[in-house]
Amino acid sequence: MNGTHHSHHTPIPLQELAQSIQATIHGSPEVLISGLSHLEEASCGDLSFVVKPKFHETARHSLAAAFLTTQPIPNDPRPQLITSHPLLAMATLAQQFFLPPLPPRGIHSTAVTGLDVRIGPDVSIGPLVTIGDRAEIGSGVTIYAGVHIGEDTVIGNDCLLYPHATLLANCILGHRVILHSGTVIGSDGFGYAQHKGRHHKIPQLGNVLIEDDVELGANVTVDRATFGSTIIKQGTKIDNQVQIAHNVLIGEHCIVVAQVGIAGSTRLGHHVMIGGQAGLVEHLTIGDQVRIASGAGVTNHVESNQTVGGRPAVAHNTWRKAQVLQYQLPDMRNELRALRKEVDDLKQQLHDPSTPSPSS
Amino acid sequence: MNGTHHSHHTPIPLQELAQSIQATIHGSPEVLISGLSHLEEASCGDLSFVVKPKFHETARHSLAAAFLTTQPIPNDPRPQLITSHPLLAMATLAQQFFLPPLPPRGIHSTAVTGLDVRIGPDVSIGPLVTIGDRAEIGSGVTIYAGVHIGEDTVIGNDCLLYPHATLLANCILGHRVILHSGTVIGSDGFGYAQHKGRHHKIPQLGNVLIEDDVELGANVTVDRATFGSTIIKQGTKIDNQVQIAHNVLIGEHCIVVAQVGIAGSTRLGHHVMIGGQAGLVEHLTIGDQVRIASGAGVTNHVESNQTVGGRPAVAHNTWRKAQVLQYQLPDMRNELRALRKEVDDLKQQLHDPSTPSPSS
Amino acid sequence: MNGTHHSHHTPIPLQELAQSIQATIHGSPEVLISGLSHLEEASCGDLSFVVKPKFHETARHSLAAAFLTTQPIPNDPRPQLITSHPLLAMATLAQQFFLPPLPPRGIHSTAVTGLDVRIGPDVSIGPLVTIGDRAEIGSGVTIYAGVHIGEDTVIGNDCLLYPHATLLANCILGHRVILHSGTVIGSDGFGYAQHKGRHHKIPQLGNVLIEDDVELGANVTVDRATFGSTIIKQGTKIDNQVQIAHNVLIGEHCIVVAQVGIAGSTRLGHHVMIGGQAGLVEHLTIGDQVRIASGAGVTNHVESNQTVGGRPAVAHNTWRKAQVLQYQLPDMRNELRALRKEVDDLKQQLHDPSTPSPSS
Repeated sequence: MNGTHHSHHTPIPLQELAQSIQATIHGSPEVLISGLSHLEEASCGDLSFVVKPKFHETARHSLAAAFLTTQPIPNDPRPQLITSHPLLAMATLAQQFFLPPLPPRGIHSTAVTGLDVRIGPDVSIGPLVTIGDRAEIGSGVTIYAGVHIGEDTVIGNDCLLYPHATLLANCILGHRVILHSGTVIGSDGFGYAQHKGRHHKIPQLGNVLIEDDVELGANVTVDRATFGSTIIKQGTKIDNQVQIAHNVLIGEHCIVVAQVGIAGSTRLGHHVMIGGQAGLVEHLTIGDQVRIASGAGVTNHVESNQTVGGRPAVAHNTWRKAQVLQYQLPDMRNELRALRKEVDDLKQQLHDPSTPSPSS
Repeated sequence: MNGTHHSHHTPIPLQELAQSIQATIHGSPEVLISGLSHLEEASCGDLSFVVKPKFHETARHSLAAAFLTTQPIPNDPRPQLITSHPLLAMATLAQQFFLPPLPPRGIHSTAVTGLDVRIGPDVSIGPLVTIGDRAEIGSGVTIYAGVHIGEDTVIGNDCLLYPHATLLANCILGHRVILHSGTVIGSDGFGYAQHKGRHHKIPQLGNVLIEDDVELGANVTVDRATFGSTIIKQGTKIDNQVQIAHNVLIGEHCIVVAQVGIAGSTRLGHHVMIGGQAGLVEHLTIGDQVRIASGAGVTNHVESNQTVGGRPAVAHNTWRKAQVLQYQLPDMRNELRALRKEVDDLKQQLHDPSTPSPSS
Repeated sequence: MNGTHHSHHTPIPLQELAQSIQATIHGSPEVLISGLSHLEEASCGDLSFVVKPKFHETARHSLAAAFLTTQPIPNDPRPQLITSHPLLAMATLAQQFFLPPLPPRGIHSTAVTGLDVRIGPDVSIGPLVTIGDRAEIGSGVTIYAGVHIGEDTVIGNDCLLYPHATLLANCILGHRVILHSGTVIGSDGFGYAQHKGRHHKIPQLGNVLIEDDVELGANVTVDRATFGSTIIKQGTKIDNQVQIAHNVLIGEHCIVVAQVGIAGSTRLGHHVMIGGQAGLVEHLTIGDQVRIASGAGVTNHVESNQTVGGRPAVAHNTWRKAQVLQYQLPDMRNELRALRKEVDDLKQQLHDPSTPSPSS
């Protein structure tokens, strides 16, 4: 085994890339591009990107053949595509030119399909996929090997379900939803009625509703609602190993980083960002554009536009100050002890002024 | 896509529901019930539930057709079923009347069954299930699509294994055990012998033993014991993404919330409750009816009937006080600085009383 | 259901075991051994192990038939194998004599194999395995039921892939790599370009490269790199439910305990040990032989040979002291209040010496 991966591609003239993102070319338009890369890892043939002028120096040391950049890199003769948002341009080019092709269209002979299933045109259903009765699958959907789709599910157009994803009965996906491998949608919510020391299961009769353009990473779990729906609204992106409990509602265009847990019936507004390993207890209301630091433990409602952190989570500034000061606790304790002694001495001296101060 | 999910059902007369839970009817027994719901989300035809009189006002604004309640809701003409435990009654009715039917009985033609497998009557084994040699499966068991059952496993009666659950070789399930999708029972414990900078695998020769009426959520992992058994005793309920290491023993009727991790050889008593994202280090003994707060990091044994929290976990009151005071650290530090200055001034004045106090 | 699991085996003479690990026998070499066990759980016929003389007393009360020990246990007549590293000897014996046999060699008729797949000799490919086009599988590999192997993957010799493991397209495994059930290798990294309130997916064009002798527990996720490779170097062992983000590099012979999360592009040296539930933010450099305590939140680079803990992680001693003192915060606050009062009294007295001290 040697070195890292380069997925090289039939070379594409820089001009063709520039046209597709409407960038102006600074330098020769005829360079051939065969891959995309970060500045540091680029090899010849790669197009790389410079998000800010402060990376111009790194760019000059890069082996890239050409750059996406907001402004020309001084003293670099290599061709450059000038664009207001190099990272977005990179994403667009990657989508259009460098993605591996989707698997062949059609239904693999080993897929097992239930009764009254409706499947749209231009789908790819891989080997050993299981599809329950009455499922509806939109056009252009790609379902990789070993995916399970439960009864009465509905899948919109152009969704992508990676190997071993599990979409359980009655759940609904919008258009262009991506489910990564090992992710489970529609497992039972964790609900029991306690009675005489036993936990009696409360059947979970609801479902999960995932809107357009949501992406869920690998080994995510989203529980179905007790009644009604657990909802993830459009454009929200969820990283690996996130747990979303029953009856949670996640608003539009949120970002939820890996290993976050959101407990039952908590509701998030739109554009909420949650850092990795944070936890939110049940029945909270989190406003719009709230930012929650990684590792936070949120136990109270949070109003819109707030940034919170810590366990329990509080306003960002309060948390940051306390976080730093926790490590000054030994010094503070020592100072407290010193003060105690000095104050006792002072009291002693005042009561009996003839005693010399021990610290003098 | 519009609105949330309502799984409507052939309407059932309220009287029939009342009889099955032996509730007395307050009002008309002839109302037809077609679904169950929370108060706020109920629509006409739904039966809802009022766990405490403080929710009477919410109930009056609910659109539910009828209620389960401990005492009649004043000034509400709708029919009510009077019962001592409305949530338990709701769970019972959901189980008896509103659950979707189990899949058809029988063994799907695409299931792959090993040698000398013993399968009881009235089972449902779904498509693309794999069953290893010598496995024993009790009566009434339901195994959904794509489940794997290893060699020499034993599964009791009336168990429910959801799609893509993995039950590895030699493990044992009691009766009425539920395994949700993506859950892995019997992966190797994490054990190595360190020698000259290398980690040499200690083969994990034990198994996992799960007793009656245990439920394990989605994407849970339970490692097999190094020798002997990792054990989960009867009636315990475990939420999604919980990690249970080798040789752990979990007592009867425990509740373990999502994303908890329990390290090797730790033993829990009965009726222990562990909040989400808590972690327990290895070789601990946790007594009966212990409660562990969410996010806690337990590093010491805990005696029965204690409530602990924090990292490291301590008695609940100690933790709660410290948790609040962490955010007063900046004020405490400022006060310490002020006191330091004032004490220095006082000392100065006492040594040279003619100096006026700077603060006077 | 009664008791725990004992995987008994055809009895093997102690002498045969002694020879295979080159141990000297203290006592009779003819005892027959039918299992391995911990001291406390051993039953007759078991060989157990004593890692340190302080466990001699426990050994004397054990029911084991014989022991692996660094020095003879005084006053115990049972035969003993003298070896410098009893745990390593135990691991070796377990590997050689007590492991259940691997599944039969060959390719199961229900496995689905793509085009141009190359498969080495002596493999076992179980039922309902799916293998993508152009995959290469080395000799002696064991692939259990329901595993998915993507297109263009490369698997070295003697790897072990447990049921429902998912190895996605273009990823590379070295020799003797073990993937446990539910683990996903090569899911997309979590990368988006933000533009006008929307998150635009950055296609993840890289792969995952896992070197020789790496073991990954159950339900682990390892994301593919955006460009280039996410890398796990040889000999590293990773526990269940660990999340490894895109472009992470983990050095040789590391230990990563359950539920750890490592964010994008963070690089670890060799022999790093990370305790359970710790989190590392993105773009960090962690040196060689660093130890990170369980539950730590690492937000800064860590130099080689350091031990860190806490959130945010700091030097081990700093963290430990602060961790203990957090619970003295109520006492410290009370002491601060007492000092404030006493200092105010002292100031009062100094300004007006005729006033008697209230505390006198």
